Amino acid sequence: MEHKTLYFENDMLKLIDQRILPLEIQYYTAETYQEVCEAIKKMVVRGAPAIGACGAYGYYLAVKQYIDEDKELFLEKMSSAKKELLATRPTAVNLGWGIKKIEKELKKEIKKDLDKKSILNNILKIADQIAEDDIKTNKKIGNFGNKLIEIGDNILTHCNAGALATVGYGTALGVIRAAHNSDKQIRVFMDETRPRLQGASLTAFEMKAENIPATLIVDNTAATLIRDKKIDKIVVGADRIAKNGDTANKIGTFMLSVLAKEYNVPFYVAAPISTIDFSIDNGSQIDIEIREDKEITEIRSVQIAPEDIDVYNPAFDVTPAENITAIITEKGIIRPPFIENINKLKSN
Amino acid sequence: MEHKTLYFENDMLKLIDQRILPLEIQYYTAETYQEVCEAIKKMVVRGAPAIGACGAYGYYLAVKQYIDEDKELFLEKMSSAKKELLATRPTAVNLGWGIKKIEKELKKEIKKDLDKKSILNNILKIADQIAEDDIKTNKKIGNFGNKLIEIGDNILTHCNAGALATVGYGTALGVIRAAHNSDKQIRVFMDETRPRLQGASLTAFEMKAENIPATLIVDNTAATLIRDKKIDKIVVGADRIAKNGDTANKIGTFMLSVLAKEYNVPFYVAAPISTIDFSIDNGSQIDIEIREDKEITEIRSVQIAPEDIDVYNPAFDVTPAENITAIITEKGIIRPPFIENINKLKSN
Repeated sequence: MEHKTLYFENDMLKLIDQRILPLEIQYYTAETYQEVCEAIKKMVVRGAPAIGACGAYGYYLAVKQYIDEDKELFLEKMSSAKKELLATRPTAVNLGWGIKKIEKELKKEIKKDLDKKSILNNILKIADQIAEDDIKTNKKIGNFGNKLIEIGDNILTHCNAGALATVGYGTALGVIRAAHNSDKQIRVFMDETRPRLQGASLTAFEMKAENIPATLIVDNTAATLIRDKKIDKIVVGADRIAKNGDTANKIGTFMLSVLAKEYNVPFYVAAPISTIDFSIDNGSQIDIEIREDKEITEIRSVQIAPEDIDVYNPAFDVTPAENITAIITEKGIIRPPFIENINKLKSN
Repeated sequence: MEHKTLYFENDMLKLIDQRILPLEIQYYTAETYQEVCEAIKKMVVRGAPAIGACGAYGYYLAVKQYIDEDKELFLEKMSSAKKELLATRPTAVNLGWGIKKIEKELKKEIKKDLDKKSILNNILKIADQIAEDDIKTNKKIGNFGNKLIEIGDNILTHCNAGALATVGYGTALGVIRAAHNSDKQIRVFMDETRPRLQGASLTAFEMKAENIPATLIVDNTAATLIRDKKIDKIVVGADRIAKNGDTANKIGTFMLSVLAKEYNVPFYVAAPISTIDFSIDNGSQIDIEIREDKEITEIRSVQIAPEDIDVYNPAFDVTPAENITAIITEKGIIRPPFIENINKLKSN
């Protein structure tokens, strides 16, 4: 991709503003952790791996903001900054994962009684490493996933698990990029993905930028394409995966998984291992974020429904492990039995 | 409903403009059959029973436009008017049904060699009868359907099969109105129904106008609600029903039917008998209308996808009879075996 999802420069986190893509390309600048929180909440940036990296940079910015305070106040401020960052989006596990990585390093540095400048330098390095690793991880996911793709496959994807959902390259779209780049003559079918239309605005933007053949559909059309054998594979991303393989992802994913099972279409989840939450046994323990009514009643500020209508707007749903053919990670393809095979990953 | 979907007055067909509801209430006036064609094509008016009545009035207007020509030219003009009217929307069978009813009357009148004024009067009566009958039919559908609804039911509906899809009262929403009016304390869940958002803009408008408790969701959310037993019944309309019960309805209906079957939720189709196409054996013979890309790439003139992206936009899908619990008609509730029970209706 010509444009970067995010980069960190001169102590500023720069984020491509995904609320106005594909029509305008503008960068949002966060110089404080509060501005990072705003960007995540308002979905300037979204996608589990991308907000994982943002969480890390946000935490770094908080350290920078408070490091001159005395130690007790500093730790107090950091504790509340962490809480605020974690509260921005409750479902994606990578956010906590990124923050915890930095926090661990910070605690080490404090113990060693390093000077402030060194502490800042060292934890920024960890944040940069998380961002860099994400791209490498996605390329590995892409390569593993590509083994599952056959020449001429029509691949359905939901939401945007692309370069824009990660630091770069993408998870589900990483698989698609790898398949396209190895000349497999694939075609992508993109669910537009209401309410926020990430498929129409972000996946379509990415596919067009790289000339990957792609067709946009409304979410309602997927079922007929699946039944009529117009879809050979379904590849989606993930926001949180439980130890048994149950997977939270963008609302609508579960619907696709039921259709895939009914009509024998392979259903793949592409996600880094950081998306696996080893602290939960199954999907019922995943907190599903409920977002504001306006995401449904207004589209890009145009009102489409009557005033004050009651709305129910969960951002994610949970696909049960039994509907998933395999999970594509940077360490390889995990197949059922998921409980056993996910557990092996942990011990690796 | 306070507002009428359509009415005919002083040789003008007045249509509430459904493209701008719920924000504005404006009537579109058609004084020629060509203006009726435009209104149907552009979806000023939509819904199989409503366009059935419009087809009838459109045909009447064509007769009025050409009746002063000599007989040969008149018949030629009428033949092409009929073709144009039928071509406006290929999927809904009621359009042809309404036109044929008038055409039959016209042929009778011509045979009898009646004067022009009488011909016009007589065929207008038939068109008015079609419109009046539609409301009566829908009330009967509502009453039969109400027998299937239990106290406290949560009812999911897709698109708008309401007063706005008919001359009044509605089919699927007729069932919902009847249940609400008999104090069954129901709640309606409304799929917003992309691409044209008839659920968000029309069903929500109708439910609000009559204070029927209703919650708006994106189409992607239905699956989780169905799985989690938050939906007790699904009731939808129909655009064309084959002799075996296969049913064409708004894109997304088929998806709901698969989920309903998987999770044992009753799935009802509410439609007048005029929606049954006794000339086709099954759903594979139903012509599915493909509509323009802009319905997906623009929402109320706001662009949401990149320029020139490839789009696939079928307006309808086909739900196989095996996924349908029952079809609610004005003559009663038809249950499987549909081939047998639909055939009985024909002979009645």
